[in-house]
Amino acid sequence: MSDPVDLTKRLIACESVTPARGEVFDCLAAMLEPLGFDCQRFARGDGPEGSDEEAVENMFAIRRGPEGSKHFAFAGHVDVVPPGEGWASEPFGPEVRGELLYGRGAVDMKGAVACFIAALAAIPAEAGTVSLIITGDEEGPALHGTRALIDLMRERNEIPDLILVGEPTSVNRLGDMMKIGRRGSVNIWLEVAGTQGHVAYPHLADNPMPKMVAILAELDALVLDEGTDWFQPSNLEITEFDVPNRAHNVIPGKAKARISIRFNDLHTGAELSERVTAIAEKHGGTARPVISGEPFLTPPGDFSQMIANAVEAETGVVPEASTSGGTSDARFLKDLAPVIEFGLVNATMHKTDEAVALDDLATLTAIYRRIVTAALST
Amino acid sequence: MSDPVDLTKRLIACESVTPARGEVFDCLAAMLEPLGFDCQRFARGDGPEGSDEEAVENMFAIRRGPEGSKHFAFAGHVDVVPPGEGWASEPFGPEVRGELLYGRGAVDMKGAVACFIAALAAIPAEAGTVSLIITGDEEGPALHGTRALIDLMRERNEIPDLILVGEPTSVNRLGDMMKIGRRGSVNIWLEVAGTQGHVAYPHLADNPMPKMVAILAELDALVLDEGTDWFQPSNLEITEFDVPNRAHNVIPGKAKARISIRFNDLHTGAELSERVTAIAEKHGGTARPVISGEPFLTPPGDFSQMIANAVEAETGVVPEASTSGGTSDARFLKDLAPVIEFGLVNATMHKTDEAVALDDLATLTAIYRRIVTAALST
Repeated sequence: MSDPVDLTKRLIACESVTPARGEVFDCLAAMLEPLGFDCQRFARGDGPEGSDEEAVENMFAIRRGPEGSKHFAFAGHVDVVPPGEGWASEPFGPEVRGELLYGRGAVDMKGAVACFIAALAAIPAEAGTVSLIITGDEEGPALHGTRALIDLMRERNEIPDLILVGEPTSVNRLGDMMKIGRRGSVNIWLEVAGTQGHVAYPHLADNPMPKMVAILAELDALVLDEGTDWFQPSNLEITEFDVPNRAHNVIPGKAKARISIRFNDLHTGAELSERVTAIAEKHGGTARPVISGEPFLTPPGDFSQMIANAVEAETGVVPEASTSGGTSDARFLKDLAPVIEFGLVNATMHKTDEAVALDDLATLTAIYRRIVTAALST
Repeated sequence: MSDPVDLTKRLIACESVTPARGEVFDCLAAMLEPLGFDCQRFARGDGPEGSDEEAVENMFAIRRGPEGSKHFAFAGHVDVVPPGEGWASEPFGPEVRGELLYGRGAVDMKGAVACFIAALAAIPAEAGTVSLIITGDEEGPALHGTRALIDLMRERNEIPDLILVGEPTSVNRLGDMMKIGRRGSVNIWLEVAGTQGHVAYPHLADNPMPKMVAILAELDALVLDEGTDWFQPSNLEITEFDVPNRAHNVIPGKAKARISIRFNDLHTGAELSERVTAIAEKHGGTARPVISGEPFLTPPGDFSQMIANAVEAETGVVPEASTSGGTSDARFLKDLAPVIEFGLVNATMHKTDEAVALDDLATLTAIYRRIVTAALST
């Protein structure tokens, strides 16, 4: 139970294209129960049409320490993206070639789940409470995964003190980057209605294009912020303006466009949506926002230092504390406790021949062991 | 040869969907030669693929007056738009029902050609030089019609003193409107090149959309002019912005848009094209203008008064001197001599069951007779 390569192989062998259910969770429970974990499994969401199944399975596994001890949580997922074509070996048939272990999920993120479990083998239950927050719906819509797990934990009052997300955050070598935050994301669909007409008789028409151009010019001129100590400036991109028109002499009757905002923790999706809506309405348009995620930030401090110390002790590398890139499930977990992401090298994630270095699995296990030990003893 | 209804029927009976050739010109020559006209017919442009025919036929017909007499020209066309479906009678089978004569071209503009020829029957050759500038390519691309006729007239040094275009300019009743000018028209295609990328990594992309929005905002803010005594203000419309994008997270690599300008005689197509190009290039874009026509204006004066007097004498109506609407072949003729358009009621032109009132044909003949008589005697 303490060899992370063996555990990773066992998880890869369970085919679990998102949404994950069944076998991969059986496998996980078989690893955790011998270590003293209480594994709560539950399903959520609608399954395939005509079936009684629920779409997504999740697991909350907890091993309680002595009364009053710290509670450290590891969050991750066992669903994977589809393998695609062209693999040198079977995507769900784990295979070691040279110094690498190949298989879908090797780095994103069955390898990290395996390392965390391997790390626990050397940590006695008396050290404190440890839990695993594992979803089968991270690579999909993420509607019935981590959010459902958070609901369960709140109901049971199992609130961790710290949460480590095992996403593959390392870039060039294991340990070079952790994520202490992520930007939020909102897409906003804009529309201006007008009245179609002939360009020779503009007084009989109402061209919506100048209004849309005015909306977009005002939005493009917005300086949302100058960035923070930890985040780059929030950024707005005009991503679509969809008014095709084959006739040379026709004033169009409707203008449609779309913007995308990636924003730091100086903003919320709701506040930005309100600002954009006000600008759209001022010029006679409408706005329909869809918020994909709010930002999170765990400012550098004890938790990030704890991770940096563990990484440096095992690798000699001091990890950069980054907030770059897309969203992750940390956007939900931040409501429970301080959360930081740290895991394997992400170079091959979602790609053909996804692979993890055998050495990295051993090193990450050692790093996770140091982190848990430190977190429970503070 | 002096009954305009009979002449109109004979012209309608010659099927002459644009570009016109052959029969309708034979018919025209048969009307004009007995009146003493020298009819020059010639063809221009490429005909149907595989044929030796030329596409478009034109006629310049002239009856010279005494040395030093005035030269009055009538310009028109004998091609028609396709009839379409749903006529109550044959489109090319002229039919009188009640007070109306039905047939394709009845008002646009075989009726006016017939009225002018009928008017000439009462005007002796000694009164002065009269010519007809008749094209078979007004309803089509207009590449090989009036422009070719103008070339011929220049070569032969047959330059009129005044030109009347017989387009149907009347709106609600015969005589209520003449056109003393027309606006010019230019369409301009705009493009901004960028670099496609992911919205989460905008520093790796170059979004062309803000540049295009800036171009369009600057163009939309232009006040080209405040109008003139005779023209409404020049007008610019944004008619297309064609950047569809199904992906939410992708910054587009290219932005394309189009504007259309209708402009008065304070501008030329070339000058406006240069202004728009400079604005596009300032923001990193390009512009590709296509000028459809330059404006013309024959300022109110002796010629328009001559027409107004003739109209008022026959109808009691004083025609409005307008510059509204689309372009016409007067945009070419203006280079030869002062030009004004006056003709039948345009309510049914280009429509199913195109028809002209029998009374209007008689009245227009009388009006044209007064105009020619006045023009040759000044």
